[in-house]
Amino acid sequence: MAKKRIGLHTVRLEQPPVIIGAAAVAGPMEAQGPLGHEYDQTYPDLTIGQSSFERAERQMMIDACNLALQRAGITKKPPAVDYFLAGDLLNQIITATFSGLQLAVPMYGLYGACSTFSEALAVGAKLIDGGYADRVLCAVSSHNATVERQYRYPTEYGSQRKPYAQFTVTGAGAVVLAVSGDGPRITYCTTGKVVDYGIADPFNQGAAMAPAAVETIHAHLTETGRTVDFYDLIVTGDLARFGRDMAIKLAAERNLTLGKNYNDCGAMIYDHTRQDVHSGGSGCASSAIVTCGHLLKEMARGKLKRILVVATGALLSPTTFQQGENIPAIAHAVALEA
Amino acid sequence: MAKKRIGLHTVRLEQPPVIIGAAAVAGPMEAQGPLGHEYDQTYPDLTIGQSSFERAERQMMIDACNLALQRAGITKKPPAVDYFLAGDLLNQIITATFSGLQLAVPMYGLYGACSTFSEALAVGAKLIDGGYADRVLCAVSSHNATVERQYRYPTEYGSQRKPYAQFTVTGAGAVVLAVSGDGPRITYCTTGKVVDYGIADPFNQGAAMAPAAVETIHAHLTETGRTVDFYDLIVTGDLARFGRDMAIKLAAERNLTLGKNYNDCGAMIYDHTRQDVHSGGSGCASSAIVTCGHLLKEMARGKLKRILVVATGALLSPTTFQQGENIPAIAHAVALEA
Repeated sequence: MAKKRIGLHTVRLEQPPVIIGAAAVAGPMEAQGPLGHEYDQTYPDLTIGQSSFERAERQMMIDACNLALQRAGITKKPPAVDYFLAGDLLNQIITATFSGLQLAVPMYGLYGACSTFSEALAVGAKLIDGGYADRVLCAVSSHNATVERQYRYPTEYGSQRKPYAQFTVTGAGAVVLAVSGDGPRITYCTTGKVVDYGIADPFNQGAAMAPAAVETIHAHLTETGRTVDFYDLIVTGDLARFGRDMAIKLAAERNLTLGKNYNDCGAMIYDHTRQDVHSGGSGCASSAIVTCGHLLKEMARGKLKRILVVATGALLSPTTFQQGENIPAIAHAVALEA
Repeated sequence: MAKKRIGLHTVRLEQPPVIIGAAAVAGPMEAQGPLGHEYDQTYPDLTIGQSSFERAERQMMIDACNLALQRAGITKKPPAVDYFLAGDLLNQIITATFSGLQLAVPMYGLYGACSTFSEALAVGAKLIDGGYADRVLCAVSSHNATVERQYRYPTEYGSQRKPYAQFTVTGAGAVVLAVSGDGPRITYCTTGKVVDYGIADPFNQGAAMAPAAVETIHAHLTETGRTVDFYDLIVTGDLARFGRDMAIKLAAERNLTLGKNYNDCGAMIYDHTRQDVHSGGSGCASSAIVTCGHLLKEMARGKLKRILVVATGALLSPTTFQQGENIPAIAHAVALEA
């Protein structure tokens, strides 16, 4: 077995890369949520002065990257990073590639739907620990108006949504990983498999993704020999409230108790008593803005020491669900330790 | 600088991973082309017995994976590979993710448009050389009927195409990389930046991608200290005939003579005297089926010893070109040495 591999899904980083800078930017709904004060930048509307929602999303990703680079003390242009790893939910990950054009550094585009955040952290950590890079910039984004119209209906239609539907998070998160420095370290990465539990409703992504999250958490704990309690917090990416409850039940079937130290980013972003977001948040930005905006700050404040971020992706396309296919899902876990 | 990095774009693999198996599958037009006899499997039509073109493309990717695994002596199910790295041109790289579902191994989805083939080889090589994997399966695909209708027009419309338009290649290529074994090795990987030279016509992708190819070739040669003549063959991915000529001119401006040892996969796939493909082939499968089907066999026959594969990607989406954006492009190079 490869020397850094400890199981079928998990690798151990020999010299765990450090998160030396991170930033979260968020839209107006997210700014009004319970974590609104934690984001590094928020915008009063969905267009942020751009001529299209797509351009607005791109500007958000670039803003997140620039803020993260600034936090990391990297101010030159083009930034002194060896790779830009990025992805988003738009067709041809066009937010990421147009952001890459502005950043002007070597780039790999990634796609794992809303799991892309932890995919990017994992690939970035391996590029650093493997000796290929000193610094890697990772970024993901999603935007309510670009994503809803691409996957489901333009929001202007005002079509009625089922109670378990989720609300796409508007925002972007960026992380600068480095070979050394101050900050939490990425110690283990658990790469998920694509799973399909028979969900075919594109509004019911929490249900599609919950099994993938539980499979990856189970694999991570089994292969590392850790227990749920080892972590101060295990967060999934964007199962939202219904998916979170389902994950808790599915985990119980595997004798894993996801209790007080478990939550889901999509369930944390909004206040369900006063914000009309149905089951909760979804999108690449869900795990990214909660992690970059809130959790990493909680780690810096000493309130969290060890967290497991399990971003979750629903691998549908409008074509596949119109053709009657199920929605497969995937989840990748990264362990962050202070 | 990170220990395996030799320049801004290029890394040297310390223990160069080996290509222990590869396979190319191709559609009917490709089967009739000059390399038709080289592909491991060809199909008589574009549906290959499936109920949609999308399912046909997926079956092609799976066929290519299974053949490559077979060549590598990996016959168990799920296959004993540590990662499946894959991408394609369909929205949400749905060919890759549904193939990942069937393969049932840990997966990272990649997107670099038609540059995804060399992106996958490069990421895979680093995962092996970095100590994270013993074996990695890389795969990409494209399909004329799925891609044309998604990016431009359904082929059934019979819309007239400009002479510089390209013809999307139908097929898939897969490669099994391993830490040791018999086969050519990946010695250097040069990661491209996103560039934009002002092309906005989605039929003129060769022109959009040629500058990216030349930038990456130039970076590779400068950073490795190699000359064009070091390689028995330098191949770009899918510039086709017009883009190839443009690449030769742009290279000359940088004092690089791309002569007899330079060609483009998109220009090699079809016989332009008898096949109506305008400028030539495009799509992820272009570089993949020429490399997996033909060039790796030429290396096994001893006819080629050192080749540089420079897959090229046009980073457009239908949304961005309808919104009047240019078509940025990227190219990644991998050096294969017997």
